[in-house]
Amino acid sequence: MGLPATDLIEVTYRIEADASEIEQRAYDIALEQTVELPDQVVTDSYVRDNIIGKILDIQPQQAGIYHARIGYNPLCAAGELTQFLNLIFGNSCIKTGLKVIDLLLPNDVLSGYQGPRFGQAGLRDIFAVPDKPMLCTALKPMGKSSDDLAELAYQFALGGVDMIKDDHGLSNQSSAPYEERVEKCVAAIDRANRETGGRSVYVPNVTAGFDQIESRVRFAKQAGAGGLLIAPGLVGFDTLRWIAEQDDIALPIMAHPTLTGPQVINPSIGFSHRVFFGLLHRLAGADCVIYPNYGGRFGFSEQECQDIASACQQEMGHFKSIFPTPGGGMGFDKVAQMTKTYGQNVMYLMGGSLYGWSDDLTASTKALLEKLARTS
Amino acid sequence: MGLPATDLIEVTYRIEADASEIEQRAYDIALEQTVELPDQVVTDSYVRDNIIGKILDIQPQQAGIYHARIGYNPLCAAGELTQFLNLIFGNSCIKTGLKVIDLLLPNDVLSGYQGPRFGQAGLRDIFAVPDKPMLCTALKPMGKSSDDLAELAYQFALGGVDMIKDDHGLSNQSSAPYEERVEKCVAAIDRANRETGGRSVYVPNVTAGFDQIESRVRFAKQAGAGGLLIAPGLVGFDTLRWIAEQDDIALPIMAHPTLTGPQVINPSIGFSHRVFFGLLHRLAGADCVIYPNYGGRFGFSEQECQDIASACQQEMGHFKSIFPTPGGGMGFDKVAQMTKTYGQNVMYLMGGSLYGWSDDLTASTKALLEKLARTS
Repeated sequence: MGLPATDLIEVTYRIEADASEIEQRAYDIALEQTVELPDQVVTDSYVRDNIIGKILDIQPQQAGIYHARIGYNPLCAAGELTQFLNLIFGNSCIKTGLKVIDLLLPNDVLSGYQGPRFGQAGLRDIFAVPDKPMLCTALKPMGKSSDDLAELAYQFALGGVDMIKDDHGLSNQSSAPYEERVEKCVAAIDRANRETGGRSVYVPNVTAGFDQIESRVRFAKQAGAGGLLIAPGLVGFDTLRWIAEQDDIALPIMAHPTLTGPQVINPSIGFSHRVFFGLLHRLAGADCVIYPNYGGRFGFSEQECQDIASACQQEMGHFKSIFPTPGGGMGFDKVAQMTKTYGQNVMYLMGGSLYGWSDDLTASTKALLEKLARTS
Repeated sequence: MGLPATDLIEVTYRIEADASEIEQRAYDIALEQTVELPDQVVTDSYVRDNIIGKILDIQPQQAGIYHARIGYNPLCAAGELTQFLNLIFGNSCIKTGLKVIDLLLPNDVLSGYQGPRFGQAGLRDIFAVPDKPMLCTALKPMGKSSDDLAELAYQFALGGVDMIKDDHGLSNQSSAPYEERVEKCVAAIDRANRETGGRSVYVPNVTAGFDQIESRVRFAKQAGAGGLLIAPGLVGFDTLRWIAEQDDIALPIMAHPTLTGPQVINPSIGFSHRVFFGLLHRLAGADCVIYPNYGGRFGFSEQECQDIASACQQEMGHFKSIFPTPGGGMGFDKVAQMTKTYGQNVMYLMGGSLYGWSDDLTASTKALLEKLARTS
C-alpha cells in the first residue's frame, strides 16, 4: 500500500551519474534519507511501503546529469522544520554530485507552517510604499558607538530608507551593546520620522546564543523596533520560524545569508539558489530574504538571483509572497538594469554604495529614491 | 595602536588567487569579515586600528593557491559563539576559492567556553573502557515502533555497545513518539545492564524545534538517558554549547553531521574537515563528533578522517580531548585497518554493518567487540 504520490513531499535532486548507475544512485538517496540502511536489511513491510522514499521519476539532462524526483511520506518529517530539512537532504548532502533543485510540498505539510506574517503586501502597507521597490540599509561598521550608529540611523531615516537594519556583525560588542544600541537607534529613527512624517524602522540583529535569542527579540519589541534581523545559518531555520510565529512579537523578519554560502555556491552540491533562499526561507517565515546581488563582490549570476526572486513570489499554498532583498552590486548607475531583473517587487539592500556615494547619507538616500521612482 | 598579534583570533584561509591579486584578496576578507565596507570609506581611526582584520602572513602554496593568516580582535566576537562563526567566515563563505583551514584562539577566547564536559577521559570512566576503542550504534529504521526500537536497544546493550543512540532521523514521529521512545529505550537498556552488569546507555536525539529543544533535553535527563544526540547543522552550534554547559543536565553530547556536508566536502569552499568537525565541534562542547568514515558510502579520505581525529585531541587550552566518532565504512574485516588509522582513542559508530551482519544483534556486537579487543 503506501500513500498516493500527491500526498508526498516531493524533492527533485540533480544527480551527477552514469546511465548505468543512476537508478541505484536515486534509490540510495531514498534509503539514506529515511531508513539509512541497505535495502536488503529493511524487512518490515510497513517500513518498506511507507517510510522508504519513492522514486517518482528520473529525467536525463545533459550527459552525466539527471534530475530525480523522490517522494517522502510527510509522517517522516514529524511536523518539525528541523526534521523536514533532515529528511530532504540531511546525510545525502555529504555526498558530492548531488544537489536539491526543487521542492513541492503537499497542502497538509504547508498548512503546518504559518509562513511569512507580513509578506510583500503587509510590508507595503506598513511602509506606505504601494508599488515601488522598497529600500533597506545597514548600520556599520562594527566598532562604532551606539551614539554614532544611531546618528547614521537618523540620517538614513531622514532620507527615507524603509528598513534600517544592523550590519549582521553587530551583536553585543562592548563598542555598542545590544540594548543600548537598540534604544538609541529606535529613538533616533523616531525623531527623524517626527520631522519627516516618514515610517522608517529600525531592524536590530537578534542573532545570538541559543539562550539569548528570545530575550533579544522581546527587548527589541518592547523598545519599539520595527523588524528583526536573524541569520538562519548561525541559529538554524527553525529559530526564524519560531520568531515569525510569535503573535506577541509580530514584527517583520529579515533573514541574513551569513555562513550559508557553501550550501548554494557550488553547482554540484547543496541546494539550488531558488530552493535555499526562496522556498526554504519562505517556508520558515522570512518576510525579506537577503542574498548577495549579482554584479557585486559575490558570485551569484543574474539568473540565480532571478530564480530566488521568482521563488519568493511563486504559488505556494497559503504562503504570502516575500521580498527578495538583494544586497550589494547596486550602485546608482545600476537602477535601470536592476529594474529589468527584478521589476518593482523587490527590496534593495544598499549599504556600501550609500556610504561611499557621499558624506551626506540623507542626500544620497534621497537621490537614490528619486532614481528608483523615475525608473519605475 | 591596536592589539598585539598574540591576542588575536587567528584564522588561516586557503585562497585561490593569482600572485597579482592575493594581497587584495586577503585584505578583502579582513574588511568583509569586520567592517563590511570598502577601505576608503572607513575613516574612524579606532575602527581602522582595532576592528579591521589584520593580515598576519601570506604563504604561497602550489600555483594559484595561498594560505593567508588573518587576525581578528576578540572584541568583534562579543563572547558569543554565533558571532564568532560570523566573524571568522560569515559573508566570505559565500565566495568560491576560499576555505578556512586553521584556527588559533587566544586563551582569553578559549576561557570563555566551557568546552566538552566529559571528553575522552570522562567517557572512558563512565563506561569503564580504559583503553580500547569505544562503540556506538544507532536505533533504526524510522517507522519502527518504540517497542521495536527498545528491543533493538536491549539486544545491543546485551552485546555491550557503550552508547546506543537514536538514528538522527528519529525525532517525534507518530510511529515512535519522543517521550514514549525515550522511556522504553531507557528501560530496555537498564534491563540489559542488570542482566550483564554492563553500563550501556541510551542517547536520544534531542534535535527539534527551537522551542522544543530544552524540554526534550530535560525529559531525556529525568528519564535516565545517558547522553544526548544533537545536530548543529539543523539547530546551530550554539545550541550544542548551551546543552553542554547546563550543570543540571551534565550528559555526554554526541554531535551529528546532518546538513553540514557542503560546509566541508568541496576543496575550494567552506571549512576544512579538521576545523569543522574537530575544532568547531570541540569549541562548542561536543564529547563525540560523528562524521562519515572513509571507505564507506561518503567521500571523506583517510587523511581527512585522520585530520579530524587529530583535531579532536590536539592541544587546545583547557579543552578536553574528545572522541572522533567515524560512522560507516567499518565492517568486521576493517578492524585492523581502522586501528592503523585511529589507534585506540576512537569511538566507532556501527549501524548498518551490525544490522547487516546477522539477525542476532547481540552476537554480532560481541563478535565485533572481541575483534576490537584482539586488535588493540
